[in-house]
Amino acid sequence: MDRTGLLIILSSPSGAGKSTLARRLMEWDPALGFSVSATTRSPRPGEVDGQHYHFTSQQEFRAMVEAGQMLEHAEVFGNFYGSPRAPVETAMREGRDTLFDVDWQGGQQIRASALGGHVVSIFVLPPSLSELERRLRARGQDSAEVIEGRMEKSRAEISHWAEYDYVLVNDDLDETEARLRAILTAERLRRDRQGGLGTFVKRLMEEDRR
Amino acid sequence: MDRTGLLIILSSPSGAGKSTLARRLMEWDPALGFSVSATTRSPRPGEVDGQHYHFTSQQEFRAMVEAGQMLEHAEVFGNFYGSPRAPVETAMREGRDTLFDVDWQGGQQIRASALGGHVVSIFVLPPSLSELERRLRARGQDSAEVIEGRMEKSRAEISHWAEYDYVLVNDDLDETEARLRAILTAERLRRDRQGGLGTFVKRLMEEDRR
Repeated sequence: MDRTGLLIILSSPSGAGKSTLARRLMEWDPALGFSVSATTRSPRPGEVDGQHYHFTSQQEFRAMVEAGQMLEHAEVFGNFYGSPRAPVETAMREGRDTLFDVDWQGGQQIRASALGGHVVSIFVLPPSLSELERRLRARGQDSAEVIEGRMEKSRAEISHWAEYDYVLVNDDLDETEARLRAILTAERLRRDRQGGLGTFVKRLMEEDRR
Repeated sequence: MDRTGLLIILSSPSGAGKSTLARRLMEWDPALGFSVSATTRSPRPGEVDGQHYHFTSQQEFRAMVEAGQMLEHAEVFGNFYGSPRAPVETAMREGRDTLFDVDWQGGQQIRASALGGHVVSIFVLPPSLSELERRLRARGQDSAEVIEGRMEKSRAEISHWAEYDYVLVNDDLDETEARLRAILTAERLRRDRQGGLGTFVKRLMEEDRR
């Protein structure tokens, strides 16, 4: 098996359904790995270290960046976020795909990295911004001020839609999930993404000459 | 709707299931058009002019080629085959995709044409060559000599697998059909294949500023 694992980048403004879609994709394909981000922000209630995030100190984070151990990193609302490189490279070598829940900054950096040729990037758009705001309010987690900040960030995020390979409008979660599955299925069938095809065809052609 | 229709090229050695797969795809998506080839060969029993082929004289065929009305054409076993350009261009303008059942020569010419940027090409491999030969014999249509000729052509066809965007091994017809559907679904979701996305995002961003 000489297939190289893909880097699946899923971006969207918060509230557009990205986390749910990511979870469903992982349920559909248990072999799909998830890139757990490192962050310097404090854990929120219920967040588990190593599962939701790798919670690190500013010092640890900087050391990883300086040692080239982050595939991408960015500052958002005063906190640092980054994708550790090692687990991704291991998955790629073993032919397993990795899903990234990153914003446009992360997407740009991963695409621009040495691994960029293995990236499949998908942007999920909300059907409307008022729907997005409604979903953020319905969470009941945040103040009006925080929600306004998130909406501003959402507009900034959406402004980068045209940098992605695929764009989905999440009108219906089931339909969007089916589309994501189709994208993953298709990308894995691309000639240049499949391992061992050359060997398979070589055997095929020699078959009746033995 | 400013989407431009895609040109879906499906190639495979004969007997690998291509015709069945093409028919099933058309049943799945009735909006998918089929490029009916023009040919100078005589109709076989049951073949309907305009449905299976446009049966033309050598003279008509040459006139169409000289007038630039063929998207691709080639000589196979002494007969000419070609894909008329006009219906494809109409479909593209109207945002409908067209399926081509052509060999590697047709595929190369369509890809190299001015419409090449809209091509999605898929190669279907048989699981084995002996299986392919078995299927050709089972048809009971052809003599041993004709079958040997077809097998030689199959090997030549297979030798071009690496020119295609996608490669499928047709182990199981249902599974291969599902994969073809995924490829079509995904290709239609590529950002640069979708029409009207820019307009949609512009409206989305302006929505709450009215």
